[in-house]
Amino acid sequence: MANTSKGKLSRRALLAATAGAVGAKLLPAQDSGTKDPTKVQGELARELGERSRFEEPRRTFFSSSRNASNTPLQDLEGIITPADLHFERHHGGIPEIDPDSYSLLIHGMVERPRTFTLAELKRFPAVAMTRFLECSGNGFRTFRNPDEHKEETVQQVEGLTSTSEWIGVPVATLFKEVGVLPGAKWFLAEAMDAAVMTRSIPIEKGWDDALIAYGQNGEAIRPEQGYPARLFLPGFEGSSNVKWIRRIEVADKPFMTREETSKYTDPLPDGKARMFSFVMDTKSIITHPTYPMKLDEKGFWEIKGLAWSGRGKIVRVDVSTDGGRHWEKATLQDPVLPKCHTRFRFGWNWNGEQATIMSRATDETGQTQPTLSELKQVRGPGTTYHYNQIRAWTVRADGSIVYGENA
Amino acid sequence: MANTSKGKLSRRALLAATAGAVGAKLLPAQDSGTKDPTKVQGELARELGERSRFEEPRRTFFSSSRNASNTPLQDLEGIITPADLHFERHHGGIPEIDPDSYSLLIHGMVERPRTFTLAELKRFPAVAMTRFLECSGNGFRTFRNPDEHKEETVQQVEGLTSTSEWIGVPVATLFKEVGVLPGAKWFLAEAMDAAVMTRSIPIEKGWDDALIAYGQNGEAIRPEQGYPARLFLPGFEGSSNVKWIRRIEVADKPFMTREETSKYTDPLPDGKARMFSFVMDTKSIITHPTYPMKLDEKGFWEIKGLAWSGRGKIVRVDVSTDGGRHWEKATLQDPVLPKCHTRFRFGWNWNGEQATIMSRATDETGQTQPTLSELKQVRGPGTTYHYNQIRAWTVRADGSIVYGENA
Repeated sequence: MANTSKGKLSRRALLAATAGAVGAKLLPAQDSGTKDPTKVQGELARELGERSRFEEPRRTFFSSSRNASNTPLQDLEGIITPADLHFERHHGGIPEIDPDSYSLLIHGMVERPRTFTLAELKRFPAVAMTRFLECSGNGFRTFRNPDEHKEETVQQVEGLTSTSEWIGVPVATLFKEVGVLPGAKWFLAEAMDAAVMTRSIPIEKGWDDALIAYGQNGEAIRPEQGYPARLFLPGFEGSSNVKWIRRIEVADKPFMTREETSKYTDPLPDGKARMFSFVMDTKSIITHPTYPMKLDEKGFWEIKGLAWSGRGKIVRVDVSTDGGRHWEKATLQDPVLPKCHTRFRFGWNWNGEQATIMSRATDETGQTQPTLSELKQVRGPGTTYHYNQIRAWTVRADGSIVYGENA
Repeated sequence: MANTSKGKLSRRALLAATAGAVGAKLLPAQDSGTKDPTKVQGELARELGERSRFEEPRRTFFSSSRNASNTPLQDLEGIITPADLHFERHHGGIPEIDPDSYSLLIHGMVERPRTFTLAELKRFPAVAMTRFLECSGNGFRTFRNPDEHKEETVQQVEGLTSTSEWIGVPVATLFKEVGVLPGAKWFLAEAMDAAVMTRSIPIEKGWDDALIAYGQNGEAIRPEQGYPARLFLPGFEGSSNVKWIRRIEVADKPFMTREETSKYTDPLPDGKARMFSFVMDTKSIITHPTYPMKLDEKGFWEIKGLAWSGRGKIVRVDVSTDGGRHWEKATLQDPVLPKCHTRFRFGWNWNGEQATIMSRATDETGQTQPTLSELKQVRGPGTTYHYNQIRAWTVRADGSIVYGENA
């Protein structure tokens, strides 16, 4: 959204602070040269709309390998993530797939193995659901050394999460179509990308709320999200939501693929590893005000952010403005949907002194976000996925804001 | 969505049939030259995503004046309309407005007249709601001479309707802020476009669910939708949802502006005119299968479409496949939201003979769509807005489909 608040963030500062904002144009100065719009004929209708030139949300990258990109959470309102800003994570780049040659094979422990063309998938009754999707590694930058990441945006810290309306055919419908056999316990999902990404999924998830999704925010799914079809597992870590899915194999045990043995497991303090840690835990993050914003006056500031849980609905978000000593209940903005970003809002009267602002979400199963030390105690300092600890932003007396200080 | 069904529509035919699809590229032939995607490194992450090259939804225009554009309803799934495909209608073109110089004045019958900057508007607690917006003239092409429009797409026939997640501050919040005086009955909404569009709105709507909206589908509202802020009146005809709003004047009577005297009134058979006919009536349209699709075999075809009402939720959609003699209940696809596009689905077993397919929606107030003759009886043949009659598509024995035959 336009940075028009009095305590405005400098767009230049934001861009300078945001790694990889390649090619982003700088905003014009305050005098933008616009004429009185009531005195000039405006632009005519177009086949495809474009954003205002005063709005330039962009995904950012961690590195030049560009195998991931982060959603600009600080620029968004509501809960939907525009499709072109949905975070990305891919292991072999984004494949180009001709939808006319696409098919999905379902075989293994089934009565009637078969392939489905995209048209055949679309003929089944579809369902739509607005749900978040989060990379299990979201937040990895700040877990080990939060003090090294003070001058980072919420996009850099926590931008590997997004929300879309997903449309597709329930996996359960296809399971009935092929006749999954008794004794089936897992299924393999395999991608047709250069990584041939493979993950084992518990069969119960297939019967529950899993989709073969071909639609996103009202239109065809985007290439980086799995065009023409992907597995969508509400609440499960991103990598298990296999994109560009070409094969499902039903079995009585997991397949122990590289992405669930070498990767996407959680080393524990006792030397063992937690495997198949699919469900994304309850989490929240303040998106406003955050670095590099600067509050230029005392008084009312709205603290807002996003909360979500892979287990169901968010029922409560508490906000602290004194580093966690006192907590107060934030307002949840409608709609509050299960396994979906939920926006929270909290009116804060800043007294002009240094303050540490934090948010703490609780979901309908009663799970509440842990502190960083609580999380490290259970998972150990070396864990590489599933970071849902309480985060903090410190507002300094001069109004500047940094990540994680005093957290 | 990709046209991969066996009864496929020719993309070329669609483009040829769609007036104004200027510059739309033709799809490659079936052999698209894509390589085995598991054998080549895919594309890297990007700052802004793009659609697959196999998907080319585009808005279309009625005329070269390009003061309106239609949403490609036949290409969409779910209920959200991507922001760049939301229909347009403007009376003086799309103004360019610098958000830093934007302000909204509220005055008239109020205790404390004042202006609000965009930043000030954004500091108030926001609400988000997913709602349809429809031009009151949607459907005008086919009302008088349906037989002249047989070879038209659902986009041409009914594309002046879209659904978004709208985010903003309730008008009621601003009314409290300025202290609306007792006796106030109406308010004027004035745009800062070249038409200086003005409409009078009943004060009750302001207290009820009206928004000053600055967000759309998670991000800043698009220029053609009123950037940086518009009036959004759930369920009310599009033109009353004044875009680029710069002034609200509270009064004890309507202002009788050009757009509610000369335009946006409904001439009646008795020579009088219906004024302030704000609420969009219960309506539905089949979006699949429609012209220029061709069914290439007998058997199962899913009939699907959209239904909506300005009065509340859709509670029922009936589908007829025999020109209205028999009706059967369609399935409503979740989510079913008030004053919002609702997707319906109906499994149809086509016997290969000519068939006329129709849909008929009913909302929670009990309002059901009328037939064309019922509507003409009440409104007269010369009405120019609010067309919610039952529509038909005829599937001929050769599988080709045309609009409105035998309707």
